[in-house]
Amino acid sequence: MDELIGNLLVAQSGGPTAVINASIAGVIQEARQHACMSGLYGGLNGILGILKEELIDLKREKASTIKALKHTPGAALGTCRYKIDFKKKPERAAHDMDRLFQVFQAHNIRFFFYAGGNDSQDTAHKIHLEAVKRDYAMRIIGVPKTIDNDLPHTDHCPGFGSTAKYNACTTMEVAVDIGSMATDDGACGVIEVMGRSAGWIAASTILARRQPSDPPHIILLPEIPFDQQAFLDKVKSVVDTQKYCVVVVGEGLKNPDGTEFSADATRLDAFGHPILAGAGERVAELVQGKLNTKTRSIKLGYAQRCAAHYASATDVAEALACGAAAVRAAAEGRSGLMVKIVRTQSNPYLWTTGLQPLEDIANVEHMIPRNWISEDGFSPNEKFVEYARPLIEGEVKVPAEGGLPKFAVFAKRRLRCKLPPRA
Amino acid sequence: MDELIGNLLVAQSGGPTAVINASIAGVIQEARQHACMSGLYGGLNGILGILKEELIDLKREKASTIKALKHTPGAALGTCRYKIDFKKKPERAAHDMDRLFQVFQAHNIRFFFYAGGNDSQDTAHKIHLEAVKRDYAMRIIGVPKTIDNDLPHTDHCPGFGSTAKYNACTTMEVAVDIGSMATDDGACGVIEVMGRSAGWIAASTILARRQPSDPPHIILLPEIPFDQQAFLDKVKSVVDTQKYCVVVVGEGLKNPDGTEFSADATRLDAFGHPILAGAGERVAELVQGKLNTKTRSIKLGYAQRCAAHYASATDVAEALACGAAAVRAAAEGRSGLMVKIVRTQSNPYLWTTGLQPLEDIANVEHMIPRNWISEDGFSPNEKFVEYARPLIEGEVKVPAEGGLPKFAVFAKRRLRCKLPPRA
Repeated sequence: MDELIGNLLVAQSGGPTAVINASIAGVIQEARQHACMSGLYGGLNGILGILKEELIDLKREKASTIKALKHTPGAALGTCRYKIDFKKKPERAAHDMDRLFQVFQAHNIRFFFYAGGNDSQDTAHKIHLEAVKRDYAMRIIGVPKTIDNDLPHTDHCPGFGSTAKYNACTTMEVAVDIGSMATDDGACGVIEVMGRSAGWIAASTILARRQPSDPPHIILLPEIPFDQQAFLDKVKSVVDTQKYCVVVVGEGLKNPDGTEFSADATRLDAFGHPILAGAGERVAELVQGKLNTKTRSIKLGYAQRCAAHYASATDVAEALACGAAAVRAAAEGRSGLMVKIVRTQSNPYLWTTGLQPLEDIANVEHMIPRNWISEDGFSPNEKFVEYARPLIEGEVKVPAEGGLPKFAVFAKRRLRCKLPPRA
Repeated sequence: MDELIGNLLVAQSGGPTAVINASIAGVIQEARQHACMSGLYGGLNGILGILKEELIDLKREKASTIKALKHTPGAALGTCRYKIDFKKKPERAAHDMDRLFQVFQAHNIRFFFYAGGNDSQDTAHKIHLEAVKRDYAMRIIGVPKTIDNDLPHTDHCPGFGSTAKYNACTTMEVAVDIGSMATDDGACGVIEVMGRSAGWIAASTILARRQPSDPPHIILLPEIPFDQQAFLDKVKSVVDTQKYCVVVVGEGLKNPDGTEFSADATRLDAFGHPILAGAGERVAELVQGKLNTKTRSIKLGYAQRCAAHYASATDVAEALACGAAAVRAAAEGRSGLMVKIVRTQSNPYLWTTGLQPLEDIANVEHMIPRNWISEDGFSPNEKFVEYARPLIEGEVKVPAEGGLPKFAVFAKRRLRCKLPPRA
């Protein structure tokens, strides 16, 4: 292994999760154990802030702040959706890459960690290839993060377990509420959850179902083309027997022709734009309109990806471990890899971390296997339950002040800029 | 005081809250201390189930079930929205009243407790008047319950504190998420909360604001006519200085002409009905359309009234105490009253329970005083904060199984019917 000494840079990218900051805590805590990593820097707002040379000194942050990262939602370093796009904007991309390596060189960055989903791992991969090409000694490790749980090769993604836990709990709570209101007239509740192409999040609400007749009674997955008549028949049958029906809808629900169910071009808003009403609201309209059953909808939106107050303790521990494993891998001389979670057994649940080449990850989407979904398509089956159950285990205790959580806020002591401003 | 011995009947009515079952636990636990209350019965689905003679024996429920009521959302006895309406349906109402007293007499009900909001207290009041008129010895006490917090004479209503706590926490979490995503392009998040006429719920999200510049930046209350231009100016100014803006909207937001902002007759759904898009979604469309700022909306819906996993410990204790106080009042010979919460001081917070004639409660709505709202109408002020702050204090510990809460479920052992079925 080459001896490599220099500074560490960590940044976050894409939509935040309830535990993305736990991974940053893992990076920082582990890095302190490695003398080769002299400076510990954070890049603000992902790659975008690094391009602007917006770096902060993480060694000057309080120990209590680092500790509190474990229960702080949002991206404590800030995040972005910026993509270095060699295909669509090759000139801009080449320019960005030059600038990135100027920043790396100016601050002697030799260890780079990027926490994110598909796009972010793609960015990390491109930076790795570029470092090799430029013969710039730097070790790049990706840290997985996405509530969507759609990264390949890792058993699951940090962030998913907490969203699954919060959504399943919300489904249980809403279900007893609606169930207790149900009279002979019947009642229906529709809960829209995130997941544009993969249905992992919607599917995970199955964990609320302890007995076969328990809610959620129907789960509409983006993977299964939406058969409206079969759905309405099922709602009617559930309401007839149980007086109420709870439906969970993945926001990316598709029509049989592959178009998105929520995009209704026939409805325009006050400005003449087509209304993206949300799949949940449209499903609720369908039930109310066709079955005349009183129906209420809920759209959890961002609330489901930042509910640190009900995070999964398993998820927090895994997110932390992924950050730490990334640092250990880099210290051992590895590069161009993403940390993955490896399940060694389901019951009792045992896991460890592993490494996977970034080129295997970038831009590959991992969907729910069809044989993890019931034949009628309205529910994941016991294979999915066995997979998802351990990921929501364990409660966290979030420090409170005045009845509300206390979050970590970085002081963000900026490093002095060494380069001219970005062109 | 007359000596009165007989059976107790308790029932729930209207929309459930996170703590409505804590009040039932309070009734049951206190009733066991009073020998005059021989049988302890529950009416299923409020007045509607009592009319159908659907009564259960609460003495046959397990002690662990009674204990678990304190963290079980929904109405454990079932609820209804049925109204005994002497004005609109006098014949039906008279018929219902006859039937009710037949049920009371058949089961020797001498103590009746009804947990609910405005309409339910009105029902309790009518039953009290009827008992007096019929010279039927029965003591009737109302137990306050509503997340809307719009009952008069009580300092606040059990249920409100837990909704306020959950919504304020969600606002904090969503705000750090959106704030961490905000780049120079700006971002806006709109959170719709319940409250059709009173803005207590929307206003309580102010508790998420610890520093003057903290989110939520704007709170739109149903009490304040919606000035779209002033609102858009304010959003723009917040985004200009902070890069993001978090807006909370009460669902009952009104236009200056008094109509509901969410009801847009120009938009029809697939069945030709006007779309009630939800105030939050419409506000989001407005910001996106007029300011071209990326805007996402959240509609918490029922989730905010059943979030027992994040209930306020203060609220749980008060709900329990209200149930117990109702039983004590009846045991002391009182009737025709509602239990109220009396604040003796705000800081440190001290409270006790009191009693108010039901006739003072029924059909009166308690709104936020105008001088508790900022001059520009976009936020409650420090008077409101002083009022609301203590109500969200304290965290509960909900027993978990497999990472999810365990709720109480009544075994519901039915009493034998003594009357012919309801006509």
